Amino acid sequence: MAHIELDDTVPGLPSLLRFRPETAGPLTALAEALLRGPSPLERGERELIAAYVSELNGCRFCASSHGACAAVQLPGGMSLVEAVHADLAAAPVSGRLRTLLGIAAAVQRGGREVGDPHIAAARGAGATDVEIHDTVLIAAAFCMYNRYVDGLATGVPSDPAAYARMAERITAHGYGAAR
Amino acid sequence: MAHIELDDTVPGLPSLLRFRPETAGPLTALAEALLRGPSPLERGERELIAAYVSELNGCRFCASSHGACAAVQLPGGMSLVEAVHADLAAAPVSGRLRTLLGIAAAVQRGGREVGDPHIAAARGAGATDVEIHDTVLIAAAFCMYNRYVDGLATGVPSDPAAYARMAERITAHGYGAAR
Repeated sequence: MAHIELDDTVPGLPSLLRFRPETAGPLTALAEALLRGPSPLERGERELIAAYVSELNGCRFCASSHGACAAVQLPGGMSLVEAVHADLAAAPVSGRLRTLLGIAAAVQRGGREVGDPHIAAARGAGATDVEIHDTVLIAAAFCMYNRYVDGLATGVPSDPAAYARMAERITAHGYGAAR
Repeated sequence: MAHIELDDTVPGLPSLLRFRPETAGPLTALAEALLRGPSPLERGERELIAAYVSELNGCRFCASSHGACAAVQLPGGMSLVEAVHADLAAAPVSGRLRTLLGIAAAVQRGGREVGDPHIAAARGAGATDVEIHDTVLIAAAFCMYNRYVDGLATGVPSDPAAYARMAERITAHGYGAAR
């Protein structure tokens, strides 16, 4: 049961967006800008960063929903998402994406965990300033969304099909449609 | 030196808002809604929650700037902010605010760290659902802002007067004026 009185027919973040419309606008606009707005990172790559950080934070709702979004948009599908969660070093991703996911994992532990070696590795693999920026901000933002969703103990669907349906809607219509 | 090429005449978060205007809009709108928009929590209480979480995350820029904003808006001023940072249990705050700051500290550790006893203590001290919600979201949001600012190693002014000037501008004109 959630820590506050939410509409229990709606799970996870959407239940909170309905509870407090005053903050729902900026939170939705931020997700849309980060994950679907203009960026040198592909949408699927950004969803993978979001899913990976959510998995590291143990946030079932966000890891499942953004994992489903990444799976829809990346050629490797759900098996790629699962390979990254299981062992980033061995997962079949590009060297550039691997170093960016390494930066995301450092951000998940704490901002000051990102060191010069992380940045040097990303640059060595061809990452640009904007790619590094967007990776850090996506990882930081999911440290917020994950804490918001779990800190208020929102509902978590257990059926994978529920996340697949969310992912289809988000991929087609954006985060505004997820509310 | 920052991890990416930023305007080095501008410190902390504002340097990142200038670097990436596409995400600056939602990030600024979120800070404005959380810290200055309609809420049953006073503005000074919300700035204190932001400063406390930033201090726990070791984020010098955010702890100093939001500490200065809290000090301007709370009767206890900077000595109250410092008392909360030093020892929440002994700080001269109301029972309700103490339990809300306890929830914020749990969120800082991780979303699933917020347990029924935290919520029961807050309710016992008179906190409402919206107050609990706003506390969790402010704490979660500063786990994002702190990681964003430190994850890219932005500049940190050492002169306390710089933060006092920022706090005056923000208190008078809002977070849009901080960009």
